[in-house]
Amino acid sequence: MSTTLLSGRNLAKLIQQKVRDQARDLEADGLRPTLAVVVATNDGSTQWYVRSIERAAEGAGVHCRIVDLGSDATEQALASVLKDLSAEPSVNGIILQTPLPPGVDADALVGHIAPEKDIDGANPLSLGRLAVGQPAFAPATARAVTEILDHFDIPVAGRNVVVIGRSAVVGKPLSLLLLERDAAVTVCHSRSGPLEEYTRKAAVVVVAAGRTGLLNGSHISSGTVVIDVGTNVLADGSLVGDVDEASVRGIAGALTPVPGGVGSVTTSLILLHTTRAARQQSCAQVRETVPI
Amino acid sequence: MSTTLLSGRNLAKLIQQKVRDQARDLEADGLRPTLAVVVATNDGSTQWYVRSIERAAEGAGVHCRIVDLGSDATEQALASVLKDLSAEPSVNGIILQTPLPPGVDADALVGHIAPEKDIDGANPLSLGRLAVGQPAFAPATARAVTEILDHFDIPVAGRNVVVIGRSAVVGKPLSLLLLERDAAVTVCHSRSGPLEEYTRKAAVVVVAAGRTGLLNGSHISSGTVVIDVGTNVLADGSLVGDVDEASVRGIAGALTPVPGGVGSVTTSLILLHTTRAARQQSCAQVRETVPI
Repeated sequence: MSTTLLSGRNLAKLIQQKVRDQARDLEADGLRPTLAVVVATNDGSTQWYVRSIERAAEGAGVHCRIVDLGSDATEQALASVLKDLSAEPSVNGIILQTPLPPGVDADALVGHIAPEKDIDGANPLSLGRLAVGQPAFAPATARAVTEILDHFDIPVAGRNVVVIGRSAVVGKPLSLLLLERDAAVTVCHSRSGPLEEYTRKAAVVVVAAGRTGLLNGSHISSGTVVIDVGTNVLADGSLVGDVDEASVRGIAGALTPVPGGVGSVTTSLILLHTTRAARQQSCAQVRETVPI
Repeated sequence: MSTTLLSGRNLAKLIQQKVRDQARDLEADGLRPTLAVVVATNDGSTQWYVRSIERAAEGAGVHCRIVDLGSDATEQALASVLKDLSAEPSVNGIILQTPLPPGVDADALVGHIAPEKDIDGANPLSLGRLAVGQPAFAPATARAVTEILDHFDIPVAGRNVVVIGRSAVVGKPLSLLLLERDAAVTVCHSRSGPLEEYTRKAAVVVVAAGRTGLLNGSHISSGTVVIDVGTNVLADGSLVGDVDEASVRGIAGALTPVPGGVGSVTTSLILLHTTRAARQQSCAQVRETVPI
């Protein structure tokens, strides 16, 4: 069977267009959607990534404010900045970029991001709200997977979706998003036993384990849709996913490439979440200030 | 094959003994573990249930404070009571009992329960913390399932556990607890398609759907462990679970009865969470007041 490549690039462009439209509407109301990215590292690839968000933001009409506290920032200083940004009306979305300086507790810090500005779903409260069906932003990477499934009309309701990986950033929030879409969701991980027992019977397999070559052709059945969330940098600097692409081709019904798949959608969703947050916050402001 | 009945009654007694021991230790330090139950209904069976918690609490050395706001309580009054109890040092655990008066938004109210006193895991933040591995109390019913599995030495690591039901009170928190124990977890529900496709291959099936007779012998394989979380009251007033017990007997390896299974463990866990909360809060107080 021929394997369809599910490129994320067109979808990313469509989302960016939506962001531009929403940003223009907000501008017409005198509002400028603003994303704050808090950085505390000199790591080159992180700096590169943050600049790529900034470029994408500015290209889509979203203002990006980089708050760089340097690689020796204290937990206290980071907490204080996150609280200030959460309270600051001109900021609509907040990302705390990792890695953080050694000894700094990221888990404690993300609790300071106001849920309505937590556009990458980092605060545990966002995850909890997602679980109980209250409004919340999912991590952009998890949301990118469901956006790709929707974009390519791949149904999950009443079907078995296997998610490999149980992280708080992808596996867990994604399983909540898939349950909301009426899938039967199985979560596998490094200690759950032989993968193929689960993946061979799945309609869709999402791999988010961060291990090169984890899923190969022997794990799947003819026609399985494979979504590769992995982003592993090889020694030669090239980027590969968690799927052994060569062995899966010809068996999988469809496959997201790496690069150019899930990852290419993620940044545009961070921006879309920011304009959405800006709209919600402007409505909340109207509700607070207009007498009823 | 003969089906072992997994009674929860002995386990409940063991947990109550643990609660009594912890309560005595707290008392020796001049502390009195206190559970506050906020009620706003005249519903007879709820009143009966609350009194049964009160009796169990007093029997285990836990003080139970019933805060009955009456069936015409407003959301504002309930929110204010929950905030006060959250701030009140003499209260260690808080439950907001359902049902609530019509029009009152339970989802908004549970957000006012301080996470460290949220001993029945009702606040979405508790669920989010559970998901990211931060300290939090799981809903007592979800925890009762893993306590039963532990008590009867039923391993889940590396095995497939199927959870039927995706509620925020049982299905979702339970799947997080099972993932933490290294199970491969599949969540099924009313729209996930034919149950037997999942349940027949499972080592353990947990049914938490609230539908009498949902799981029967044809759904399982010889030896499957079946945990029945259902509590359905029949027209004649008798209590049954979600499992068709007669058809499952002789096929299942083990089965929790209803009544006398999961439900009998739940109340004792609410009390254990309360004494644990009291210990944690007393330590936190020491940390705050003792100069380092």
